[in-house]
Amino acid sequence: MDYFSSDNPVFITYAIASALMVLKIMGQGWMTVYRMMKSDTGLVNPEDLRKTPLNPNPRADQLELDDYVDRSRRMHRNDLENIPGFWMAGALFVMVGPPLWLAQVLMYGFVGARVLHALAYLTKQNHEVRATFYTIGSLIVIYMALHAVVGLVS
Amino acid sequence: MDYFSSDNPVFITYAIASALMVLKIMGQGWMTVYRMMKSDTGLVNPEDLRKTPLNPNPRADQLELDDYVDRSRRMHRNDLENIPGFWMAGALFVMVGPPLWLAQVLMYGFVGARVLHALAYLTKQNHEVRATFYTIGSLIVIYMALHAVVGLVS
Amino acid sequence: MDYFSSDNPVFITYAIASALMVLKIMGQGWMTVYRMMKSDTGLVNPEDLRKTPLNPNPRADQLELDDYVDRSRRMHRNDLENIPGFWMAGALFVMVGPPLWLAQVLMYGFVGARVLHALAYLTKQNHEVRATFYTIGSLIVIYMALHAVVGLVS
Repeated sequence: MDYFSSDNPVFITYAIASALMVLKIMGQGWMTVYRMMKSDTGLVNPEDLRKTPLNPNPRADQLELDDYVDRSRRMHRNDLENIPGFWMAGALFVMVGPPLWLAQVLMYGFVGARVLHALAYLTKQNHEVRATFYTIGSLIVIYMALHAVVGLVS
Repeated sequence: MDYFSSDNPVFITYAIASALMVLKIMGQGWMTVYRMMKSDTGLVNPEDLRKTPLNPNPRADQLELDDYVDRSRRMHRNDLENIPGFWMAGALFVMVGPPLWLAQVLMYGFVGARVLHALAYLTKQNHEVRATFYTIGSLIVIYMALHAVVGLVS
Repeated sequence: MDYFSSDNPVFITYAIASALMVLKIMGQGWMTVYRMMKSDTGLVNPEDLRKTPLNPNPRADQLELDDYVDRSRRMHRNDLENIPGFWMAGALFVMVGPPLWLAQVLMYGFVGARVLHALAYLTKQNHEVRATFYTIGSLIVIYMALHAVVGLVS
């Protein structure tokens, strides 16, 4: 059986969840761009202090750390620490032919946990809230990787 | 039909573009190493200030942020924010059997945009130049992810 | 022949190595969490200074860079610069049908190099030790990407 096929509903689940996470990562880059433009700060390169159309009023403090912009970069970093691992573990998980309900719970659960993590981060919820959604996402990836290895080697 | 096959020219396009992007990411690490050695600075660990063959003349200021070295690290971070998303979106895109010309335009277009982004970064071009190539690469990844999901679920 | 199949021992090698690297990346996140809790510092968000169950005694210096916690974050960043590239290059390498011994040497060699890199980082070995294991891992990824492209286009 070909697991990576549009005939396999587990694969479709994986494809949808993975594509949504692609959009999440790329969208986070655009949130950073938006926040840089809105706050007119958050630059990271000395050459960005030149007077150009994107920066008509350069000021030295535009290179200083700004929480509004840096928050989006921290969210981005957190994504990079979690989402590529999901892509890899999820692909291996698809190959052991898990029940569809389990794939849906885990994969859409991961997407949901990451969306809620992002919302908690954006709205500056207490550490505990962010940590809860981080934990759910992380444990799902770890479970899928372990489940896949056990299934593939046995 | 098996999409992930050397008989499928769309897959070959994906494989070449993806391998080039692997070399880009790994090469960026080596550029950081080269710049650290050439400038004898840019260290990030306290233990690297020990007197050893790689650091015969330790100085405390070797731990300070140095634009020459940090520029390579910023380029690396930008790669990590974009390239793994390309790998994932591209794999899904291959599975919807797109026209070869479209795959070539998007995938080699992404490679070209990232190479030009790196050159603009290295040579300290104005923000607008870097932003343009970033935008092209990002939109390609977003497009491929959307195209793939629509194709797979319909 | 279907390369991505549990009947292909080269794929099984890839799957085991890749899953171990998923666990390495996710585990690095948990090491950061553990070190934050143990040292009661290493926070990165202003809102984490609120008095909550996870932070009963907030202090402004909890936001300062702490080597104990930041070391784990630097290890994490190093993982992100190397492991996703391994996943991509390894998948392409599987598709050119390499000899099993070569796949095992390269893929388990990568896992071993990354584990030893982590141990060298944790125990603050001299730069030369860390650099050696980084180099081995990086060259393996570069080799696999080149081998795969040559095999797929010829």
